[in-house]
Amino acid sequence: MRGLFLDERPRLVDDLPLPVPSGDEAVVRVRRAGVCDTDLALAAGYMRYRGVLGHEFVGVVDEDGSDLAGRRVVADINAGCGECEDCRRRDGHHCAQRTVLGILGRHGAFAERLAIPRRNLVPVPDVVSDDAAVFAEPLAAAFAVLDVLPPDPAPPIVVLGDGKLGLLIAFALRSAGREVISIGHHAEKLALAEAVGARTMLESELDESASPRLETDAVIEATGSAGGLRRALALVRPRGTIVLKTTIAGPTEVDLSPVVVNELRVLGSRCGDMRRAVAALASGRVDPTALIVDRFGLDRAERALARAGEPGVLKVLIDVAEDPDPTPRSR
Amino acid sequence: MRGLFLDERPRLVDDLPLPVPSGDEAVVRVRRAGVCDTDLALAAGYMRYRGVLGHEFVGVVDEDGSDLAGRRVVADINAGCGECEDCRRRDGHHCAQRTVLGILGRHGAFAERLAIPRRNLVPVPDVVSDDAAVFAEPLAAAFAVLDVLPPDPAPPIVVLGDGKLGLLIAFALRSAGREVISIGHHAEKLALAEAVGARTMLESELDESASPRLETDAVIEATGSAGGLRRALALVRPRGTIVLKTTIAGPTEVDLSPVVVNELRVLGSRCGDMRRAVAALASGRVDPTALIVDRFGLDRAERALARAGEPGVLKVLIDVAEDPDPTPRSR
Repeated sequence: MRGLFLDERPRLVDDLPLPVPSGDEAVVRVRRAGVCDTDLALAAGYMRYRGVLGHEFVGVVDEDGSDLAGRRVVADINAGCGECEDCRRRDGHHCAQRTVLGILGRHGAFAERLAIPRRNLVPVPDVVSDDAAVFAEPLAAAFAVLDVLPPDPAPPIVVLGDGKLGLLIAFALRSAGREVISIGHHAEKLALAEAVGARTMLESELDESASPRLETDAVIEATGSAGGLRRALALVRPRGTIVLKTTIAGPTEVDLSPVVVNELRVLGSRCGDMRRAVAALASGRVDPTALIVDRFGLDRAERALARAGEPGVLKVLIDVAEDPDPTPRSR
Repeated sequence: MRGLFLDERPRLVDDLPLPVPSGDEAVVRVRRAGVCDTDLALAAGYMRYRGVLGHEFVGVVDEDGSDLAGRRVVADINAGCGECEDCRRRDGHHCAQRTVLGILGRHGAFAERLAIPRRNLVPVPDVVSDDAAVFAEPLAAAFAVLDVLPPDPAPPIVVLGDGKLGLLIAFALRSAGREVISIGHHAEKLALAEAVGARTMLESELDESASPRLETDAVIEATGSAGGLRRALALVRPRGTIVLKTTIAGPTEVDLSPVVVNELRVLGSRCGDMRRAVAALASGRVDPTALIVDRFGLDRAERALARAGEPGVLKVLIDVAEDPDPTPRSR
């Protein structure tokens, strides 16, 4: 089968073996996939991953006699052992033996088919388009900030970053009725947060403002850059909460004394609950499709990655199945 | 009056004006004081503090007609405005207008007298010796880790650091019935943690152990060095908690990606509740006096600071009042 395989660099190949599912796995025919910044980081050497890239997708379960056969699905990308405490009591997201779709020890979604444990699958209601369903994984990660925020921080919540994840977090928080200030570098991206009722602010305005504090009890750091934490530390009130979403690989230089002096809470947050994301998409409370800026066929997957890496580009999709949808593609 | 005044460097002076209390303040005759690493940091330029040093003390309230007159007391070192939300609803430890005894805008305890708001005073029961009462402030800070730890982390709790604060934290946790592993560089200091029932481990043993993880859900970082957080990040389980007690001024280089990938909670903790500390001392559940390694009269306060700065030295006391206790002093 065809797929975008990362070895020295990501290359489209057409001789990948079809996935052979183990006992608890289903095979999914991928319909559509999304390019994430993590894919670009992996391509640049992060995690030393080798395999098929891609972890944001929607697809259809192969005929296998199960009750999920033929269903359109998304999937939790963390495949735990199923037996450790984290797998039994929680979601297996921290199972020490886990594989992660397209990221760690498991071929990903930029290919015609993938294998994933059945328990990871989440059916997608018909009302959710393929374009929207592709966002289930990052949207689940966005909603996960609600799991670590204090139950009732004084509004507003500040979201740092107007990239894909920052915007999805603003969408998720707004859909939960939270007051949000989105801060970023790009007026045209911030407009997407404004459209869901967030207040917005350019970083440059913040630098010019008299007070560095916005008097907020909660800052979500989703800038994707090392400077985001420094900014968050300067913005948050004493005893406030910073939710870290940006994974900066490698050493960062930061003055952490405000964490102690101001008794801050710095909470890491990675993946979330796919069912919550699908429910939000199905209810119409969140529509992430405004983030889509371009799409390519699987045959142009290398180009899709390059496009996603251009400055200021939001979501790039890869149509994996032959024209499941007649939306025009970039060529 | 006499006192250790920090200007360019700490100097004993004998011409300090007596403190003139404002309406809500009491004047306290200092009996005994303790040297903290923060005093050494301030002497080295931290916070650009200028004034009388010292914030760990026990003293007697001057005759002033109040119900506290003549009482032996310790004090919360944070003097808030009394009117802001933090002062009204909480403890004023984060009042933006606060002064902090011997640290920020308020002369400290290495002097014959000090002024402090009456509401900060905590009477000391007779059963608590001056030597023990001097520890009320750092012991309150040690107990504060219990306020931010999850209610019931799986035992044991790892305490990184066998300095004064690390040991007091081990004492506090043990007094609360928690299982503790203290990790440090000095067998003779770790013995003090062992004496209260903590398990102990040398850093070097940890480096030699096959697995860097101790399988702990909670690490208290009290090493006083920038490497402590790196160590804590390597030790703690996914979804675990790191309580940061070390204030490292200035930029630190640290790879924070485990915070996100492992969804850790990094919680800053500074000061604590003085009443809890005094109650623990009065009950006998905590006896911190084993940390005392030396004592000097106020006339030798400069020497006391130098002694406290020697490698491996634990608590150095300054007897401020003339011989309130006949314990022999270093000369």
